[in-house]
Amino acid sequence: MYNGRYRNIKFNEMQIDSKQAIGVFDSGIGGLTVVRALMERLPFENIVYFGDTARVPYGVKSVETIAHYTTQIAQFLLEKNVKLLIIACNTMAAVAAQTVRDMSPVPVLDVIEAGAWAAVQASKTHQIGVIGTPTTVNSNTYARAIHDLTQDARIYSQACPLFVPLVEEGWLDHPVTRLTAQEYLKPVIAEHIDTLVLGCTHYPLIKPLLQEVMGEGVKLVDSAEAMANRTAALLAELNLANTSHALPHYEYYVTDVPVKFQTIGERFLGRSLSHLHVVKW
Amino acid sequence: MYNGRYRNIKFNEMQIDSKQAIGVFDSGIGGLTVVRALMERLPFENIVYFGDTARVPYGVKSVETIAHYTTQIAQFLLEKNVKLLIIACNTMAAVAAQTVRDMSPVPVLDVIEAGAWAAVQASKTHQIGVIGTPTTVNSNTYARAIHDLTQDARIYSQACPLFVPLVEEGWLDHPVTRLTAQEYLKPVIAEHIDTLVLGCTHYPLIKPLLQEVMGEGVKLVDSAEAMANRTAALLAELNLANTSHALPHYEYYVTDVPVKFQTIGERFLGRSLSHLHVVKW
Repeated sequence: MYNGRYRNIKFNEMQIDSKQAIGVFDSGIGGLTVVRALMERLPFENIVYFGDTARVPYGVKSVETIAHYTTQIAQFLLEKNVKLLIIACNTMAAVAAQTVRDMSPVPVLDVIEAGAWAAVQASKTHQIGVIGTPTTVNSNTYARAIHDLTQDARIYSQACPLFVPLVEEGWLDHPVTRLTAQEYLKPVIAEHIDTLVLGCTHYPLIKPLLQEVMGEGVKLVDSAEAMANRTAALLAELNLANTSHALPHYEYYVTDVPVKFQTIGERFLGRSLSHLHVVKW
Repeated sequence: MYNGRYRNIKFNEMQIDSKQAIGVFDSGIGGLTVVRALMERLPFENIVYFGDTARVPYGVKSVETIAHYTTQIAQFLLEKNVKLLIIACNTMAAVAAQTVRDMSPVPVLDVIEAGAWAAVQASKTHQIGVIGTPTTVNSNTYARAIHDLTQDARIYSQACPLFVPLVEEGWLDHPVTRLTAQEYLKPVIAEHIDTLVLGCTHYPLIKPLLQEVMGEGVKLVDSAEAMANRTAALLAELNLANTSHALPHYEYYVTDVPVKFQTIGERFLGRSLSHLHVVKW
């Protein structure tokens, strides 16, 4: 079903072992929402996660700096011998997905492609809203990805820079978060969309509040779930699903372990976080 | 008047030329509020600024990582042949000021010392509040610096992690910022302080709103102004003030130039921002 986009995957006929891990990376811990969705959807896959917690957030950095950091991380995971790379960070996907595809001998998936596809499936009117960090929204990548799938779509984008710090503060159901959401979403609501893409891995944690502000008539697309579905389809299609049914192995690499990392990380992951390694760059 | 603290300054009897620049550094652009105060207070001093815009914010990173980055920046400015180092970032001052003093052949001032001194001067009851990033507040450095000056002070600290993103969003007088301030400051108000230290270089931009929330009876201490006064006193005392009265030279080094950098930078600096150089690490 994803055929149209799969043609873009640069997949050399190298020998890939299905037991190799899936490499997932993000600018920080937000990508753990993608890992969580993968664990639920694909319980036998080994996963290696990389979160650039020392240099987070990426959403306010220049395109050049983001591309430089993204390449460094992709290289690290490729050296861990992964069978598939997943760009779980919307900002990196927005500005550096092609850079990663150009350097990778294994398939590359990114959350924007996955979110765009899920949005087109969910929308009846093809009036679609997208919210994300300033860099993601300014890059216009979601709009291009959605237009690649359906040319009649109309897309309304809105940058919501305060949602990430609000989620990290833990104000998931708080008057300040509600007031901020009302302010950011007012112009989006005015466009009468029927589907809203949560274009940042932090946003699933405030999904109930966003649903309340948008109203029940609007379908929210969670890109973590979309990515898990997309990954399952790709592994099946390329015969790369791990069929060993052994207990999977999870490894986490981060560039810094700040105060409250464990607490926030486990909030995102929905389970305990072990096998944590710190990489100093 | 600052004698007590000056004994801590490691100042080798090397030959320092008063025409050499003052080196000011911060994790990002917040330190430009200190530069602005220095320009107003000391209009003949040359200034070199370093803002680590690629790796900002520091307030959510581990102590080890902050110390590592701080050393790297101090070394960079020392190679620019500065006559004085000013740590304009509260987070760096909180966890790495001693590291910088140990490596520096020129005097080192930091915003926390300056803010503590100004708070003690301003307070009548010695019931003092301090607000800052989580790292600054958790380090307890303001409390220690104030206690060094007056042992009978009682200090109430409160981390306000959302103020930095709110200031960077430009919501300086906005209902969301007011509601956030009311929430963070409620426990501080309950302590009946008479002085509140704005322990983060971003906070002077929301000083009117904070004053309104705290009430007119509470004196707000702006650490940028405090630092300018402290610098003037030190330069006079060490005979290091630039007496040439030539037009001063300002240089700015940053590690990244993100979207809206110029706009936000000039909002902090209160004037146009030229002589900007990008350092790639």
